[in-house]
Amino acid sequence: MTWKTDGLVHEPPELPFSIATARSQLRSGELSPVTLVELLLERICRLDPMLGAFTSVFEAEARQEAKRCRERLEAGDDALLLGIPIAIKDLIDVAGKATTCASRVRAGHLASQDAALITKLRAAGAILLGKTNLHEMAFGITTQVSCFGPARNPWQPDHITGGSSGGSAAALAAGLTLGAIGTDTGGSIRIPSSLCGTIGIKPTHGRVSCRGVWPLSWTLDHAGPMARTVEDAAWILEALDGFDAGDPMSRKLPPFRAAEALALPVRGLRVGIDRAWCDEQLTGPVRSVFELALSALESAGLTLVPIEIPERDVAQSISLTLLRGEAWAVHEELLASFEDAYLPETRLRLEECCHLTAADQARAMRYRLEYGRQAESLLESVDLLATPTTPCTAPVSSAEHVDLLGGQREAIRPLLTRFMRLFNLLGWPALSLPIGRDDLGLPIGLQFAAGPGDEARLVTAAAALETALGMPRMLASPTTELKPGQGREATNEP
Amino acid sequence: MTWKTDGLVHEPPELPFSIATARSQLRSGELSPVTLVELLLERICRLDPMLGAFTSVFEAEARQEAKRCRERLEAGDDALLLGIPIAIKDLIDVAGKATTCASRVRAGHLASQDAALITKLRAAGAILLGKTNLHEMAFGITTQVSCFGPARNPWQPDHITGGSSGGSAAALAAGLTLGAIGTDTGGSIRIPSSLCGTIGIKPTHGRVSCRGVWPLSWTLDHAGPMARTVEDAAWILEALDGFDAGDPMSRKLPPFRAAEALALPVRGLRVGIDRAWCDEQLTGPVRSVFELALSALESAGLTLVPIEIPERDVAQSISLTLLRGEAWAVHEELLASFEDAYLPETRLRLEECCHLTAADQARAMRYRLEYGRQAESLLESVDLLATPTTPCTAPVSSAEHVDLLGGQREAIRPLLTRFMRLFNLLGWPALSLPIGRDDLGLPIGLQFAAGPGDEARLVTAAAALETALGMPRMLASPTTELKPGQGREATNEP
Repeated sequence: MTWKTDGLVHEPPELPFSIATARSQLRSGELSPVTLVELLLERICRLDPMLGAFTSVFEAEARQEAKRCRERLEAGDDALLLGIPIAIKDLIDVAGKATTCASRVRAGHLASQDAALITKLRAAGAILLGKTNLHEMAFGITTQVSCFGPARNPWQPDHITGGSSGGSAAALAAGLTLGAIGTDTGGSIRIPSSLCGTIGIKPTHGRVSCRGVWPLSWTLDHAGPMARTVEDAAWILEALDGFDAGDPMSRKLPPFRAAEALALPVRGLRVGIDRAWCDEQLTGPVRSVFELALSALESAGLTLVPIEIPERDVAQSISLTLLRGEAWAVHEELLASFEDAYLPETRLRLEECCHLTAADQARAMRYRLEYGRQAESLLESVDLLATPTTPCTAPVSSAEHVDLLGGQREAIRPLLTRFMRLFNLLGWPALSLPIGRDDLGLPIGLQFAAGPGDEARLVTAAAALETALGMPRMLASPTTELKPGQGREATNEP
Repeated sequence: MTWKTDGLVHEPPELPFSIATARSQLRSGELSPVTLVELLLERICRLDPMLGAFTSVFEAEARQEAKRCRERLEAGDDALLLGIPIAIKDLIDVAGKATTCASRVRAGHLASQDAALITKLRAAGAILLGKTNLHEMAFGITTQVSCFGPARNPWQPDHITGGSSGGSAAALAAGLTLGAIGTDTGGSIRIPSSLCGTIGIKPTHGRVSCRGVWPLSWTLDHAGPMARTVEDAAWILEALDGFDAGDPMSRKLPPFRAAEALALPVRGLRVGIDRAWCDEQLTGPVRSVFELALSALESAGLTLVPIEIPERDVAQSISLTLLRGEAWAVHEELLASFEDAYLPETRLRLEECCHLTAADQARAMRYRLEYGRQAESLLESVDLLATPTTPCTAPVSSAEHVDLLGGQREAIRPLLTRFMRLFNLLGWPALSLPIGRDDLGLPIGLQFAAGPGDEARLVTAAAALETALGMPRMLASPTTELKPGQGREATNEP
């Protein structure tokens, strides 16, 4: 590849780390969207075969769109994400493309129209770069179970990415895209963000339309942004935000404005910590890095407030009950027709869902409303909650258990979702950001949650913590870590 | 009984027909609350043994409260319902009293505290007169199935009252109370209001707290006022209105103000009529009286707008599915422990509910949200909807079917709920008012429905129609109609 912008051959330009940098370079003319797309396509071509982050890459369309963006930029167009490449989790409809859900069940699918959020991204000027790998049907949190093969963690390719939006997180960490879209029903944005060291926001339930997003459990499903900086995630969220009468779960909320959120004062924000929840059952590195992050928050002027979150375990379990009932509603008929097309792990997990009764579901829905009322009283004494995002860093992909402080072993699924499901049940916004690394260089994440509609304070606090911690702005270089036999062939069809 | 108010013996005063009249008589001193309670207790004592409207009468407490109200009135207290006797459907908790739900399953129950709506009634100065009969557990629409025996229609005691709030409607029609409280999960306020010729309002879902009300299906349950005039129902609704953080279904809505609603202009209100729904499968009298009422609406300055309500039958059926799932959640354990205590009809209906799966419930909940969005678009072209409340007048109590225009026979339950369940599914407010009578003197009702939170326009339109039709202000005199053997002994225990 040669880099021509003025008729001379230059050294290849450097990939901007953040959307914010790219935006200013694109606007100043320092960077062309055409170059940006080529840089990313080159990295995808070089790194994705071993990462398995993408299920398909829209090379031709992205190049074409980049040219259109160049013209619009030259004409002074100031659209929010103009010329910014975004990767899309492959359960979101893009017109004319397959929405594979990483499942053979979807073989032959072709989306007839864009999902509502894709329409919004296009309107904001984003360039759709391709579709990213996921845990089959989003029903799992490792991205090890996918008809495309597993996604690999760019920091340690024999470790998991987390999931279900594992491809989106891996693509970000390895510098294969500037932004990505994930979905989160029980942690599927936040877990891979934590394990891959990226930012992920699960917005308030109903803030981002899920029309055209393949459901796992619609009352718990959230689509949201993933990025490498808090500011970037905020810009994407602003583009995605907005009521959609076509999605029955969509909710009218005051609009989210990234610039306003990033300018809010951070001093005096009260951050609730449930010590009994946050201190138990962590690995050593997560515990010590989480404590350092809390100190950094205090130094930045935030106030830590001890709180006790009511009925955490019941709420987590009710969240899973609802998920199962709705997942069964989605898959019951499909499973009867295409049983063998599901990967065995997914089939087994779905079959566990069929025994729940209408009364179980009804009681769970009622509990959810009661719990929401109860939990809202927490917001009288705090503005935000903080937890570790995951109690451990990315486990090695063959692991079934993780050893914790105190000698306890815990199975991976309950462990990784420990701080997750509660916020899907409540529908409150939550954000994960990297706060450090373990000895293997694997990222450690912290989760902020806030009251319904209050993404602004999530972003305020996360941006302050990001600055306070001064995490290095680096991309993963998976080639150096890859052991023989770990590479894989990417395919574009399930 | 002698009537002494000034030391002389007078003719017994006449029972005021409406709360509005009683309020002004109480305030002017023309009527004492003590006298009012005595008048009602005398009528209850005389008429209720044959009507079965009450399950218990709070004689001592009502007399005592009446004296306190007299003092407060004399002191110039202006509480909304001060001195007004109200009867309470016997699935609503009144502290220190049994909440029988008209079921032996509840034998030995004693409510430890007032339901939230009882607290509101007491705060408004109402006198609790007693508890009214209902269809066992509110799971039926005839009030023929009750451990206290059936309630009888005061206009024709061998005809049903409708249900499940049949006792409340019968007590009102026969002049045994001035106001009553009912609940409505699939028509249980509106059906008996229609069949007994009273007013019933099912408010917006969540406007009136159901904390302390025995549930049938909490996402469809509504508590609301029943009365003999639209104005009266509006006053009671104002007293009941208000958000309750203790009821997870409670909803923050702009407050309902009776005086404002009654003063709104009626001219120009657009009333949607779905002809295909309203014209089919009625009895002759209902059809002709409904047409006359529509003409009266037009004469009063309202505009009739032809509309087509989408997916009526599906929505009705989904409403029933949700009801069954939640009813099973309420009764599953009780039925296992106290199977023989349920009346056979109720047990059978409950047992039909146990086969629904979590997926059925989840899909129904999703449909409900989608349907709500779809239905709201109707409100762009109309302010209100109107239907007959019930397609027929009160059937004779032994009837299982009703003969309709065109020669069709229809079973009673689907017939009486035909215009009902849709508005429970939507949670929209709906009101029934009497618009005429059939040859037997049995009342015919019209239902208005409005958009969420818009009880005001329901009341405006209903008050205008009530005035336009000039329905006679009379109480039923069931003694003249009662055949031998139809009387019953009232008992105060299930």
